[in-house]
Amino acid sequence: MAALSERSGIPVATVKYYLREGLLHAGERTSRTQTEYDDTHVRRLGMIRALIDVGGLTVAHTAEVIAAMEDEAAPVGEVLSTAQRSVSRFAATTTPLSREHARGDLERVIDARGWQVSVDNPGRAAAVDVLATFDHLGGPDYTALVQAAAEAADLVAETDLQTVLATTGGREEMVETVVVGTVLGDVLMIALRRMAQEHHARKQYP
Amino acid sequence: MAALSERSGIPVATVKYYLREGLLHAGERTSRTQTEYDDTHVRRLGMIRALIDVGGLTVAHTAEVIAAMEDEAAPVGEVLSTAQRSVSRFAATTTPLSREHARGDLERVIDARGWQVSVDNPGRAAAVDVLATFDHLGGPDYTALVQAAAEAADLVAETDLQTVLATTGGREEMVETVVVGTVLGDVLMIALRRMAQEHHARKQYP
Repeated sequence: MAALSERSGIPVATVKYYLREGLLHAGERTSRTQTEYDDTHVRRLGMIRALIDVGGLTVAHTAEVIAAMEDEAAPVGEVLSTAQRSVSRFAATTTPLSREHARGDLERVIDARGWQVSVDNPGRAAAVDVLATFDHLGGPDYTALVQAAAEAADLVAETDLQTVLATTGGREEMVETVVVGTVLGDVLMIALRRMAQEHHARKQYP
Repeated sequence: MAALSERSGIPVATVKYYLREGLLHAGERTSRTQTEYDDTHVRRLGMIRALIDVGGLTVAHTAEVIAAMEDEAAPVGEVLSTAQRSVSRFAATTTPLSREHARGDLERVIDARGWQVSVDNPGRAAAVDVLATFDHLGGPDYTALVQAAAEAADLVAETDLQTVLATTGGREEMVETVVVGTVLGDVLMIALRRMAQEHHARKQYP
């Protein structure tokens, strides 16, 4: 345990907490006082900290994501889809919004890009909430922004899949790449958007 | 107050809470028992709920964003920049990460896109954390994903600025558009990425 803490740079108390909460798999008990931890534990700890520290996920949400990763029986496509869904947690809107118009708008965006998207994709409801809120607030026309966001999403998602397919460590590394790439990729897109916004605003207001 | 609650669809107790927390500006006291609220209050309430419900911001963070919007003396460029910064809140990484390499990588991404970005842009530190974490985890090569995310961010940010410039309601609407467009635009990009990921994964794993 002390060696694992040292290798991972994570305090012993925190490692114990992750074990209790089911985020980290148990080590192999080799004697009454010794438990062996290996590279899989170091690797898993790195992923846990990435999701919590950089991705901003809660410990509880991270535990769910890890549980979703561990279905050994499911086919690869299904495991990837489960992993992708498990990392998607959008705010639950309590404002009463009229969503009919927004649903039609989203359908047109999806059709324009030629996407095949299931009705229960977690992004759908969130996108409808955003479009309905744009309508509700009655500000400027966000149509161009929505189209640009869809084009941007398409570009990133295509590279997401190429990144997953380029992994060489088998199914486990593929799933890890979906999880880490999706959660940290979200943060990266948002961070880069802030930089690009500053750049374009500076050109306008030097 | 009852009329404001009805017009906005937000319970009286919640409206009172927003007044106490400084999210909503006070109404005009017209008699001992009457306070007048106008369209600016309805509009502000809509924005507050959009940021909290759809954007996932906390009440405290929303209060800070609103405070940042209200500097009447600053030039437009500065107000837009303050509003943009106020909505950027990234997780504070506590994992000890080596960031030197990631800083160089980010610099090359910024240079490749020709962006002018100040050293204290809030996206910088977050992007460095993500790149350092990718390095630290030692998974697949994320270079193509980082470049795609930068191209995507550029595309969206350019449209962000066009949307702000297309507003006709003066400075106040410009600032509101920066705030709403940035916070809800983040959610939209992430939501659309989930849909595009499903589409590209389905092509690979039908």
